[in-house]
Amino acid sequence: MSTVYDIARSVKIDSFKMATITESQANAALAAIANALQANKDAIVKANTEDLKNGESMGLQAPVMKRLLFDEAKLAGVIDGIHDLISLDTPVGAVSLRRELDKDLLLEKVSCPIGVIGVIFESRPDALVQIATLCLKSGNCAILKGGSEAIHSNRVLFETIRDAGIQSGLPEGFITLLETRSEISEMLKCYESIDLIIPRGSNEFVRYIMDNSEIPVMGHSDGICHVYVDETADIAKAVPIIRDSKTQYVAACNAVETVLVHKDIAQRLVPSLMESLSAHQVEVRGDATIRSYAGDIPCACEDDYKTEYLDYIVSVKVVDNIGEAIDHINKYGSHHTDSIVTEDADKAADFMQQVDSSSVYHNCSTRFADGFRYGFGAEVGISTGKLHARGPVGLDGLVTYKYRLFGSGTAPHIVDDYATGKKQFNFRDLT
Amino acid sequence: MSTVYDIARSVKIDSFKMATITESQANAALAAIANALQANKDAIVKANTEDLKNGESMGLQAPVMKRLLFDEAKLAGVIDGIHDLISLDTPVGAVSLRRELDKDLLLEKVSCPIGVIGVIFESRPDALVQIATLCLKSGNCAILKGGSEAIHSNRVLFETIRDAGIQSGLPEGFITLLETRSEISEMLKCYESIDLIIPRGSNEFVRYIMDNSEIPVMGHSDGICHVYVDETADIAKAVPIIRDSKTQYVAACNAVETVLVHKDIAQRLVPSLMESLSAHQVEVRGDATIRSYAGDIPCACEDDYKTEYLDYIVSVKVVDNIGEAIDHINKYGSHHTDSIVTEDADKAADFMQQVDSSSVYHNCSTRFADGFRYGFGAEVGISTGKLHARGPVGLDGLVTYKYRLFGSGTAPHIVDDYATGKKQFNFRDLT
Repeated sequence: MSTVYDIARSVKIDSFKMATITESQANAALAAIANALQANKDAIVKANTEDLKNGESMGLQAPVMKRLLFDEAKLAGVIDGIHDLISLDTPVGAVSLRRELDKDLLLEKVSCPIGVIGVIFESRPDALVQIATLCLKSGNCAILKGGSEAIHSNRVLFETIRDAGIQSGLPEGFITLLETRSEISEMLKCYESIDLIIPRGSNEFVRYIMDNSEIPVMGHSDGICHVYVDETADIAKAVPIIRDSKTQYVAACNAVETVLVHKDIAQRLVPSLMESLSAHQVEVRGDATIRSYAGDIPCACEDDYKTEYLDYIVSVKVVDNIGEAIDHINKYGSHHTDSIVTEDADKAADFMQQVDSSSVYHNCSTRFADGFRYGFGAEVGISTGKLHARGPVGLDGLVTYKYRLFGSGTAPHIVDDYATGKKQFNFRDLT
Repeated sequence: MSTVYDIARSVKIDSFKMATITESQANAALAAIANALQANKDAIVKANTEDLKNGESMGLQAPVMKRLLFDEAKLAGVIDGIHDLISLDTPVGAVSLRRELDKDLLLEKVSCPIGVIGVIFESRPDALVQIATLCLKSGNCAILKGGSEAIHSNRVLFETIRDAGIQSGLPEGFITLLETRSEISEMLKCYESIDLIIPRGSNEFVRYIMDNSEIPVMGHSDGICHVYVDETADIAKAVPIIRDSKTQYVAACNAVETVLVHKDIAQRLVPSLMESLSAHQVEVRGDATIRSYAGDIPCACEDDYKTEYLDYIVSVKVVDNIGEAIDHINKYGSHHTDSIVTEDADKAADFMQQVDSSSVYHNCSTRFADGFRYGFGAEVGISTGKLHARGPVGLDGLVTYKYRLFGSGTAPHIVDDYATGKKQFNFRDLT
């Protein structure tokens, strides 16, 4: 049996072929994959039923079982997603700089695939399809490692996608599925062949990957998001925005965990905020001032401000001014998504400039931070890092660029001519 | 005395202020710095003389002494560089996406500074000025660690820049100088405060930084560059391009180390190539075929293809076709800069698409890979990584982006309205 190292090496070689596929080849392969998934519907649902049955007998918890479910409706959803992806422009081959350095010497900066992307995910079979097709559209080879609880679903989805892709002319290594857990640690060492690791799963899981990879990792572990209610906020906006940010999907990374409230609006805001959150079974933890307005609620302490509850709990803290709110967010936040509620556009601008997060909002729920909602079609994940892609990551985050320099003169283009003053650079950007 | 950890924390806080400076504030600070450097000319040259004297008595080698020299001419050069930088557009605040997600809900993707950049460099005092001013122009705070051999030069340059910058209204932490070697390892642990490390120096030095940093590192260690001479090459171009790539500055990372030659042109190319390289004291190492044409030259073996000579040595190897050349480069190269010499534009296109390097050239010397020659003004270095900035890195590589979402409706913008179907996304890209 091949080692992960050998597999990755061979995928690397295929990635150079994959980098040459045209947009129409990629779209044709995607269409073939959509058709094959539809045609294999029964086998896919049957495999998933087996995973669900095993999951039940293993006593998997309800949220995991929910993510594991891949029925006809979910299949239809991912097939729709593939058609959306076909309609998006390719991110590859875009020339973002075309500069004449001198006569007959043309520099171009052109987008190109990253190469080999390793994706490690838990439970959700739909993630396999989304990620595989995003990598394909962006000209990358994907090495996938799914959770063992979804092994049957993943295997049939993988085989369907692989066969349809290869029949469409893609190189064999365009997609690979690893199935055993021990392969993860081997994969994280293949820095010569794998260019990027994208982990999707729990905080602990992502943190483990980040701490143990010799390959660059794109993603996020914590999602500690904030809503700051400024003194000039419209309370009729603030309350629903906080409620939505907390309760619309409580286990999401973009759910709010701490609400910061300007001292001059706290007394007016707290009663209606408490009413709305209580009606949604949210436990509110407050600092001393909040508790003086809210009555008998638990105390919010320093630890709360560092906690991603992923639950029906929120901490609420009073601040003296917008500067204190910004400092709190930059200190305790995870650079994910933070929102200000205010009717003062200048304050919103200050907040959005100084808060060091990948998404900064004015009068919006933090729950909008998502590739689909940003119009990216699908996303491979959300990055809280600052390098390369940041925030929800769609196709654009799966490409890098290279510089091409074309010398079209009859004489050779050499640097010595410029170093000795025989020639001079004459930069001219072309449209 | 403050620890590096405390210093970095305090710089981090200043970086939020630094992110708010306008283009005209940055340019005014740069102009003040240029003036102050000019005014402090005598003190700067005197400090450098002291470093040179110490270097001599420590027995530093000639290339190090050459890099250490910072006389009036070099000072004039960096001051010119600052004026060039002032004339460049700011990389901050550029809106690359403006999309209405729905009525009154506007998403913008806007470029912003990375935050705190740690730069570790050896010997060259001009690097301190270049890096400090590039970081300033891009709204970043810089923490610099220079080589001990340049301690007097670095200190007076740093103090001059710091005082002029602060007098222009920049936050105190916009620039920091660390002076002791032990501070490097402390610096590499400050992942909460430092966003990016840029190391400049020898291969071993950069590799040490990359292996020991908990912070993302941008740069390159090896520079194994290739020139491939295709069967359709014009020999009158190939020979000078190879000579320039090898000898124009032999210790540069973008100098060629291995020349690949198509089998059908080898016999015609080798005599004039040998003549040209011998005239420049280059030792040519060849494979069996090359040696059969070149006479008594040393043998090139597998190890040669993995070696960055940084010296007047080049290995030359025959390949059967362009595919073998591409495979060789992708296997042994360092993804830096590789050039094809050919009169066949289709082959050039194939080469440039399939070679997985940050710069790919057609009929040009590899020595063109440089920020100044690409028209970036200056560069902080060259990156052979694939994420974030790649190739020569100028101002654009020192920024990231954030998403701003503005809700301007009278009703609050919440996700639940979209999840329940009360509202629907209506994506529309604005110009």
